[in-house]
Amino acid sequence: MTANPAKRTARGTVYLVGAGPGDPDLLTIRAMRLLSTADVLVYDRLISREVLDLVPVGVDRIPVGKSSGHHSVQQDETNRMLAELAQANRMVVRLKGGDPFVFGRGSEEAMFLSNAGISYEVVPGITAAVACTAYAGIPLTHRGISQGFRVVTGHLQEHGSLSLDWRALADPKSTLVIYMGLGGLKQLAEELISAGLSARTAAAAIENGTTRAQRVVRAELQHLPRLAKEYDLQPPTLIVIGKCVELQKELAWFGAYTERNQDYVSAPVWAGC
Amino acid sequence: MTANPAKRTARGTVYLVGAGPGDPDLLTIRAMRLLSTADVLVYDRLISREVLDLVPVGVDRIPVGKSSGHHSVQQDETNRMLAELAQANRMVVRLKGGDPFVFGRGSEEAMFLSNAGISYEVVPGITAAVACTAYAGIPLTHRGISQGFRVVTGHLQEHGSLSLDWRALADPKSTLVIYMGLGGLKQLAEELISAGLSARTAAAAIENGTTRAQRVVRAELQHLPRLAKEYDLQPPTLIVIGKCVELQKELAWFGAYTERNQDYVSAPVWAGC
Repeated sequence: MTANPAKRTARGTVYLVGAGPGDPDLLTIRAMRLLSTADVLVYDRLISREVLDLVPVGVDRIPVGKSSGHHSVQQDETNRMLAELAQANRMVVRLKGGDPFVFGRGSEEAMFLSNAGISYEVVPGITAAVACTAYAGIPLTHRGISQGFRVVTGHLQEHGSLSLDWRALADPKSTLVIYMGLGGLKQLAEELISAGLSARTAAAAIENGTTRAQRVVRAELQHLPRLAKEYDLQPPTLIVIGKCVELQKELAWFGAYTERNQDYVSAPVWAGC
Repeated sequence: MTANPAKRTARGTVYLVGAGPGDPDLLTIRAMRLLSTADVLVYDRLISREVLDLVPVGVDRIPVGKSSGHHSVQQDETNRMLAELAQANRMVVRLKGGDPFVFGRGSEEAMFLSNAGISYEVVPGITAAVACTAYAGIPLTHRGISQGFRVVTGHLQEHGSLSLDWRALADPKSTLVIYMGLGGLKQLAEELISAGLSARTAAAAIENGTTRAQRVVRAELQHLPRLAKEYDLQPPTLIVIGKCVELQKELAWFGAYTERNQDYVSAPVWAGC
């Protein structure tokens, strides 16, 4: 037996579990084990069917989160629901896309449970910034090219604009990864270029990363918004910007890729099914 | 059957696999499956014993990487070895700590294999920035507190100094995560404070994250270097800086924690075994 609290499972506990980027093979061993022993599953609507299929028949499944416009109200309801289920002495798996502590509001749920005196654990998952880039063949760091990486959301504010520190983001020695950046991609590219990042910086948009439906469009930053539109990319799409993206020409191991023309643009579409 | 190349396994292929942060329960399903079917394992010396124990008896195991001072020579040798093993039609698992494309030189190995015409795949793993913070109870993002995060290495240059863009890093609205930052921690804190980050910014050092030996020291940035010394922290230790670290006071779910005094310093040491 181990005294390690992150090895046991217990009723009356909420497990905040990262489901990773979509491919069920990228779940952790611990996530898999928790899914197979849960009393009740509370899951984000974006969780893939393949992952949900791992939960035994008969386990209560409660979808929550974004779908109407009332996300913050729903978050309060989710918090309360998690607490009530745990207080009823059930073993609750709260399954979230990617990692629970990366843009997942997992820390808000943890805070609520902590304040309510309810036992919880956090099970990290592979976040899209790492998984989707790996499957697209884009290293986040590479000796002599990128010293590190930065992750932000490109989610538009209510007034339709982005509020980010563009000068700090326009760093040619770092890889920039943007979640939910498809809607604001045009503004995003323009702001980065105005802030000093070369318009010719390599950039990519990864749609449905790690899944069989993955598509990657790679282009110079200045052309990416136009191409994303031309290829009709839809969310979830991850945006990656930086010199490391150039390496994708050699490192695209997953899927079938085509170089389109002298524009230095490739429009890979995985042709399998 | 699936046509998805990331679902099959094949001889003559090199799998660049992320082992995650140390806890074998944080391996992915795919990594676990590859470890159990490999013909030969080429692994970093830092990979934990528990993870290596998952490889069946009789499989060739070749440790590589850092240990003498000749890392770049060793990297060339590792590249060649991977290619030769695959050319001998073996199924090669190249196991790396964390994620292969985050400070792992995995992209250098992939590049070499790609240029040599050898088949390879990348299996992402949970990188320390995500896993160790989750186990320490520190969210990387939190609504209204941190809009994103940045990951860099604090590895000292040969002349004993750090070369980073301190102004861009000194961003109070983002969480900063530093790999290999223990040796240069004093300089790191001083540079960030000189660049405008408040000396009172919350910061933490996480030693042996996600393992039973995990220790977390949390303090104001100005005090962290002194405390890291006082508690004699050793590598691997991850440094995290930013307002999100304050939430650790409420979110420290893993291990036993003690608040020390009015300095607003806690020195958690997990007491289990």
